[in-house]
Amino acid sequence: MPKINKYVDIDTVERESKKDLIDRHSPFITVLGDAKKSEMLSVNVRMGQEYTHPDDFDHFIESITLFNGETKLAAASFIPGTLGNEKSHAEVTFNIRPMSNKLNLIAHGYCTKHGIWESTPVVVEVAE
Amino acid sequence: MPKINKYVDIDTVERESKKDLIDRHSPFITVLGDAKKSEMLSVNVRMGQEYTHPDDFDHFIESITLFNGETKLAAASFIPGTLGNEKSHAEVTFNIRPMSNKLNLIAHGYCTKHGIWESTPVVVEVAE
Amino acid sequence: MPKINKYVDIDTVERESKKDLIDRHSPFITVLGDAKKSEMLSVNVRMGQEYTHPDDFDHFIESITLFNGETKLAAASFIPGTLGNEKSHAEVTFNIRPMSNKLNLIAHGYCTKHGIWESTPVVVEVAE
Amino acid sequence: MPKINKYVDIDTVERESKKDLIDRHSPFITVLGDAKKSEMLSVNVRMGQEYTHPDDFDHFIESITLFNGETKLAAASFIPGTLGNEKSHAEVTFNIRPMSNKLNLIAHGYCTKHGIWESTPVVVEVAE
Repeated sequence: MPKINKYVDIDTVERESKKDLIDRHSPFITVLGDAKKSEMLSVNVRMGQEYTHPDDFDHFIESITLFNGETKLAAASFIPGTLGNEKSHAEVTFNIRPMSNKLNLIAHGYCTKHGIWESTPVVVEVAE
Repeated sequence: MPKINKYVDIDTVERESKKDLIDRHSPFITVLGDAKKSEMLSVNVRMGQEYTHPDDFDHFIESITLFNGETKLAAASFIPGTLGNEKSHAEVTFNIRPMSNKLNLIAHGYCTKHGIWESTPVVVEVAE
Repeated sequence: MPKINKYVDIDTVERESKKDLIDRHSPFITVLGDAKKSEMLSVNVRMGQEYTHPDDFDHFIESITLFNGETKLAAASFIPGTLGNEKSHAEVTFNIRPMSNKLNLIAHGYCTKHGIWESTPVVVEVAE
Repeated sequence: MPKINKYVDIDTVERESKKDLIDRHSPFITVLGDAKKSEMLSVNVRMGQEYTHPDDFDHFIESITLFNGETKLAAASFIPGTLGNEKSHAEVTFNIRPMSNKLNLIAHGYCTKHGIWESTPVVVEVAE
């Protein structure tokens, strides 16, 4: 505690409101292109795959943090209203340079009403 | 994962190096004065009680975050060198105004080498 | 641009609303105790000396950053509601270890409606 | 002070080392695609156009902040080593939803050795 809410495949969830809650709070990691050792790699993190999250002043996605295993790589913080106060996928694309053979990417998103949410890990094989 | 390392009472730990590891990475919360509803309250968070942590460029306490239950209250981020590159207790004093009858304070500290560490929770009764 | 609003002594300002605007947005730095080289030193930064600032969801002090000359020492970020949505002095106490003979402390505060505000500099003589 | 270093067209600068210093510290804003009112818009900010910046533990780009006029839209913070400790263009892509007819985008980058640097402003006409 604070509880780290973990992503659950929403196909396994029955209640529509629960699917929505889980999906819109979960960070989804997409690696853009192929990972090559010591070359720049773009990593997109987007909150929600099918469902969007409010951007209200009292209820918004305040930050997205990207980790490689235990190590923080980068973080983005957001100000409410930047997404026009409309339901949106908060999203950021970071850039990193992998130096090891494997990345174990994980993201945390923080919602000002529903706390910390953790993505499923994305294992990335890094070519030499 | 990233693992949230939780504080363990170091009196229960035998190995000196392990005591040191746990203590110097753990945030300790001290509420200064009495908590009264709607009045300003100072909350100090200090990394390490008996053992200090390096402030090296490649190994430092990068941030301290204070939560009330699931809700982030405030966060401080640090730059290596601010503590003179000497072993230190990284420390910050936040100020909050409690509006409920009880606070459930928790802090996270982040070390650039050893990841996220969580304090023991401090329950604060708030007088009317 | 973004404009860095600088503190102006409010005794020189005539209009009450302008005094209020300037004061409540200005960071005031207070060094607690004497600065000694290589010893821990607490530095308090408080927004507003005589006038308080809203803590509304759409209008709040989002961060306070402390610099020594050009160098960032530490930053604190705040979540609206932490001050009970009441007019308040947002405030944080950082801790630093001065390693030179003189500090030139400056703080920036950021208001989500009125942008960046800069304190007057505080020169601190550091004893050996 | 802290000085806000402003971008100067490096073609007007003679000394090679000065061209390098200015370019590698300056944020360059690129709006991806056309801006339409109330639709998501990606905005890339990259430090340095022709020259790259170190990612050393004691000398790195610590953050990039994007503003619309006086208003902060989003910020990214970086950990040294994320770019493999190699000279790199620190870079982030934010996403915003413009609600007015014009954006006045400005970015700040912060280098742990050379302070705050400000981009040239990018005015974006937003189609209805």
